[in-house]
Amino acid sequence: MSVPVDRLFAGEPRSIARAITSVESGATDTAALMKAVFPKTGRALIIGITGAPGVGKSSLVDKLALYYKDNGSRVGIICVDPSSPFSGGAILGDRIRMATLGLDKNVFIRSMATRGNLGGLSRATVDAVAILDAAGFDKVIVETVGVGQDEVEIVKTADVSVVVLVPGMGDDIQAIKAGIMEIGDVFVINKADREGVLRTQKELESLLSLAHRPDFWNPPIVKTIATENKGIEGLSAAIESYNVFQKQGDASLERKKAIAKWQLLELLQERLLADLLNSNGAAEWLDEIAREIAKKKIDPYSAVEEILTSKNR
Amino acid sequence: MSVPVDRLFAGEPRSIARAITSVESGATDTAALMKAVFPKTGRALIIGITGAPGVGKSSLVDKLALYYKDNGSRVGIICVDPSSPFSGGAILGDRIRMATLGLDKNVFIRSMATRGNLGGLSRATVDAVAILDAAGFDKVIVETVGVGQDEVEIVKTADVSVVVLVPGMGDDIQAIKAGIMEIGDVFVINKADREGVLRTQKELESLLSLAHRPDFWNPPIVKTIATENKGIEGLSAAIESYNVFQKQGDASLERKKAIAKWQLLELLQERLLADLLNSNGAAEWLDEIAREIAKKKIDPYSAVEEILTSKNR
Repeated sequence: MSVPVDRLFAGEPRSIARAITSVESGATDTAALMKAVFPKTGRALIIGITGAPGVGKSSLVDKLALYYKDNGSRVGIICVDPSSPFSGGAILGDRIRMATLGLDKNVFIRSMATRGNLGGLSRATVDAVAILDAAGFDKVIVETVGVGQDEVEIVKTADVSVVVLVPGMGDDIQAIKAGIMEIGDVFVINKADREGVLRTQKELESLLSLAHRPDFWNPPIVKTIATENKGIEGLSAAIESYNVFQKQGDASLERKKAIAKWQLLELLQERLLADLLNSNGAAEWLDEIAREIAKKKIDPYSAVEEILTSKNR
Repeated sequence: MSVPVDRLFAGEPRSIARAITSVESGATDTAALMKAVFPKTGRALIIGITGAPGVGKSSLVDKLALYYKDNGSRVGIICVDPSSPFSGGAILGDRIRMATLGLDKNVFIRSMATRGNLGGLSRATVDAVAILDAAGFDKVIVETVGVGQDEVEIVKTADVSVVVLVPGMGDDIQAIKAGIMEIGDVFVINKADREGVLRTQKELESLLSLAHRPDFWNPPIVKTIATENKGIEGLSAAIESYNVFQKQGDASLERKKAIAKWQLLELLQERLLADLLNSNGAAEWLDEIAREIAKKKIDPYSAVEEILTSKNR
């Protein structure tokens, strides 16, 4: 499946969807597509939004997207939900959300629910973001259930990372303390009409005061009630303030370099394995060795050494 | 750091800890260690316990471990918490939990919080479980914050997977529907003294009735109040019932084969990249290329092709 890049760059939704499907499936012409996409990227503001299940991420993302749209921006949304890998539910969900957001060229939403054979959900997500950037979206929002290690990596690739909490999750703030400290450029306490909002804010503030960010940024805490569309403008302002801040310092290039390095390692790993598995009869020997391991006739480490030795012969 | 395997097989805690540190860091002698460990594995019952933050997984795991211990079993616990990658908090947490569980040879607890340079948290966790198995623990419990893709993979490698929910998370059950359907062999509704327990149970039952498991197992739903030590015996019984069930059918070998295949691909990917990065000057060219990408002078896909071409020359 080859994607017409001119239509992609013109922001044509069908071409965008096909391009994302291509990077998701790791199709052989993905490399060519991404080489064409790359020079067109770097214009969009990429916003990562993460938080535990139940904090109201989707509502918040939808309201923020509508806010941007109403202010004349084109908004792309990528939802990463690896917990539903084999369902059609994600696609149905996209359609429902698309209907809420308004069916026009200025909003695009897509779930990345499938995981390729060789992993690569994080790589595919980063590619999908680049596609939306190249397709002329001003803001690209990446929404992830943010507690897994790949999800954390994905959020790190955004220009601005937003961590969403709800009141009454004190213990969990403690539990995900270190992760939050590193990831969040902006914090949101959503469902701010609930009991315990002040306590959550105090806890968060005291945790943040213990953190020492290399860039000395002091992450703002924004209160929202997404379902009632409250606090969205404040969130937008907080995101913009960090965006302006990080563009001033040297941190921006360093961050981009770290992302590039991570992306490079992901791609290398994927390609190295793909090259090995594309060799003759790979599916058969892989199956055979897996059976041997399952029957405890060989251990996985010895099996890997045998494979690599025979490959290099 | 080489690990004395005889002491490891005798269940000596310090050797176990050193062995796990070795697989975690991906030390060069890991392969030799794991080759020695592998033939001693296959005796322990491996239980994966997963659920969103705040459902009370740790309390549940502690109480289940105490229950097993009181019934004469030796219990190993591996906690996977990738959201706190750089903190000493995990180790402190282990010590606190160890104190609760009783400081003796029959319980071992360890957090896997660090992530190696080349990824591999899932591989390291699977290795750590094998180490505890070889060290003579009767039950090995793997506790993960279960919404990330790697975390899902880890839970799949257990003999019995337990998904923990709490009342009043109706929306979230819907959200993680597909994931839950595939992973859970046993479901727990913890904090069962809370309001809404009946509704959560009904919702879960109706979701489960829609699922079609290849093995036709009907996952039991167990209610617990972990903090009050209630329902733990029922949980133990439910775990055992699935363990007996899955050992009867052909599914067990197929499952082991699927796990072996996944483990093989993980190891291959890690080794292929490690071999490339261990070549002369790799750190320098990686750094240089990352800088070029960050400055948008080259795209990551072209960079990867250049690297692989020059490697094969």
